[in-house]
Amino acid sequence: MLMKTSSDFGGFGAGNPIVGFVVGEVIAAMDSPDGKVGDLFGARLPFRTIQNLSAEELSHTLMWKLTDYLDRSELSLGLGLLGMPGSTAYGGLVDVLRPQQGETIWVSAAAGAVGGMVGMLAKSMYNCTTIGSCGGESKCATIKEKYQFDHAVDYKACADKEALKAAVREIAPEGIDMYFENVGGAHFEAAYESLRRSGRIAVCGSISKYNEAAPERVQINSMTAVTRFLRIEGFMCDPWLRGERGSFLSTMHMLLREGKIAPQETVFHGLESFGDGMRALFTGGNIGKVVVLVE
Amino acid sequence: MLMKTSSDFGGFGAGNPIVGFVVGEVIAAMDSPDGKVGDLFGARLPFRTIQNLSAEELSHTLMWKLTDYLDRSELSLGLGLLGMPGSTAYGGLVDVLRPQQGETIWVSAAAGAVGGMVGMLAKSMYNCTTIGSCGGESKCATIKEKYQFDHAVDYKACADKEALKAAVREIAPEGIDMYFENVGGAHFEAAYESLRRSGRIAVCGSISKYNEAAPERVQINSMTAVTRFLRIEGFMCDPWLRGERGSFLSTMHMLLREGKIAPQETVFHGLESFGDGMRALFTGGNIGKVVVLVE
Repeated sequence: MLMKTSSDFGGFGAGNPIVGFVVGEVIAAMDSPDGKVGDLFGARLPFRTIQNLSAEELSHTLMWKLTDYLDRSELSLGLGLLGMPGSTAYGGLVDVLRPQQGETIWVSAAAGAVGGMVGMLAKSMYNCTTIGSCGGESKCATIKEKYQFDHAVDYKACADKEALKAAVREIAPEGIDMYFENVGGAHFEAAYESLRRSGRIAVCGSISKYNEAAPERVQINSMTAVTRFLRIEGFMCDPWLRGERGSFLSTMHMLLREGKIAPQETVFHGLESFGDGMRALFTGGNIGKVVVLVE
Repeated sequence: MLMKTSSDFGGFGAGNPIVGFVVGEVIAAMDSPDGKVGDLFGARLPFRTIQNLSAEELSHTLMWKLTDYLDRSELSLGLGLLGMPGSTAYGGLVDVLRPQQGETIWVSAAAGAVGGMVGMLAKSMYNCTTIGSCGGESKCATIKEKYQFDHAVDYKACADKEALKAAVREIAPEGIDMYFENVGGAHFEAAYESLRRSGRIAVCGSISKYNEAAPERVQINSMTAVTRFLRIEGFMCDPWLRGERGSFLSTMHMLLREGKIAPQETVFHGLESFGDGMRALFTGGNIGKVVVLVE
């Protein structure tokens, strides 16, 4: 199968091709029964504009078919709402946290592609009380305006874990029901200690730790989990993208068409802007999904 | 309702009556519609031989009716297999860990009332590969003989967390699917790091920490939970005893009558032996449930 793609960021390794999430259109189908010319796909593949894949390569590639869910003109949705961030938000909220209507959720990295989507889904699907934490007053205003967060916590104004806990407790005096974890470190511990009975944490990443040589460990008092019946669960989006779990694509597509959720992107233009886009993830320079347009 | 009871151990507080799990028979029913004379009950109540309970007191007492499941001559089963340890083992294994047939489980404090029962249930209900850890060669022999453990790890022969991990890895080179947590500390961390994909931990206690002033925290690398899809869940037995969750009493009763599981008790005689029985829990002097017979 031959596919023409655009890219976002993924994992790196010196000397290896950069692999990440791409979207594209099939321009020539050879030995694949699954994709015909004109089909739109998302995939985890090396960053290149033309993908020439053998049946063998296809068999171990994470791919999901987008033809029924978007037009060629809105392909970048396959990198956001209908891609990795969307499936991470959807899977983590709907199938890992499993909200009850009206519960309270705290979402870290709430201005990012995943966190913002969690806010929108928690409000539109479950009418949750939504608390987002992010860095700076400007982002705090944005997540309330664009991502349906009821409350925003500026973590940069919180000196330490205790200050973060106090800020959340002021908003939710009886504690939180759920925490969507994107950050690690003090956020994780503050959230764990803020959970009330039957609370749960979905863990999908720890961006505060990605650039550290030794993984920092979070410290928890396990007896708190016992007496409060707490659950911590880690996950990655792959089973939802593959359609092995839940109903990610059809539900997100419906919510999108009904206007209940809306895409947010920060677009960088041209392959030469790749470094700037990458840096934005770690310096807080983005709202929503970072996309590099290479055409 | 007036009830005659025998006791086991529970929580303490200076100046307060000692409260714990008791079993007994209704000897006079007054304003309760739930218990008639001759009914057998388990309950969490102060340690005393006669319980005289008002409707108000009954309404906030954890009680479970045993009349259909045991005879007066085997009342102590209501402190073990059909009581707190049984419901903790059953709930944690069946409804929290949710085993697949043939999976590998590591159980800590495997010679204790809860741990031993987990071993028996994991083998008889799910044909799991069962690994139990306990202190000393004698207990290691006992858990294999009496609790259906395939393998035993003497934690006292393991100098630290890494040695404990190595001992388990030798038995289960590809890692474990489940860990039943009774202990805390190094055991928890060793087990967490030994879990393979889709692994889970049921946390019901941390006996190594009960006597410490400040709760020791366990340290985990949360990214391991992400990449391996791990779940950690805390629980207490109350919902299973109350019949709000699962089918604890009927299933345990059936397994017991079929001879698939067997009670194990260490009996102390007379109220004056209470202190000795209590100490046995912390010094490793018991096999199975510690029961104090006060008649």
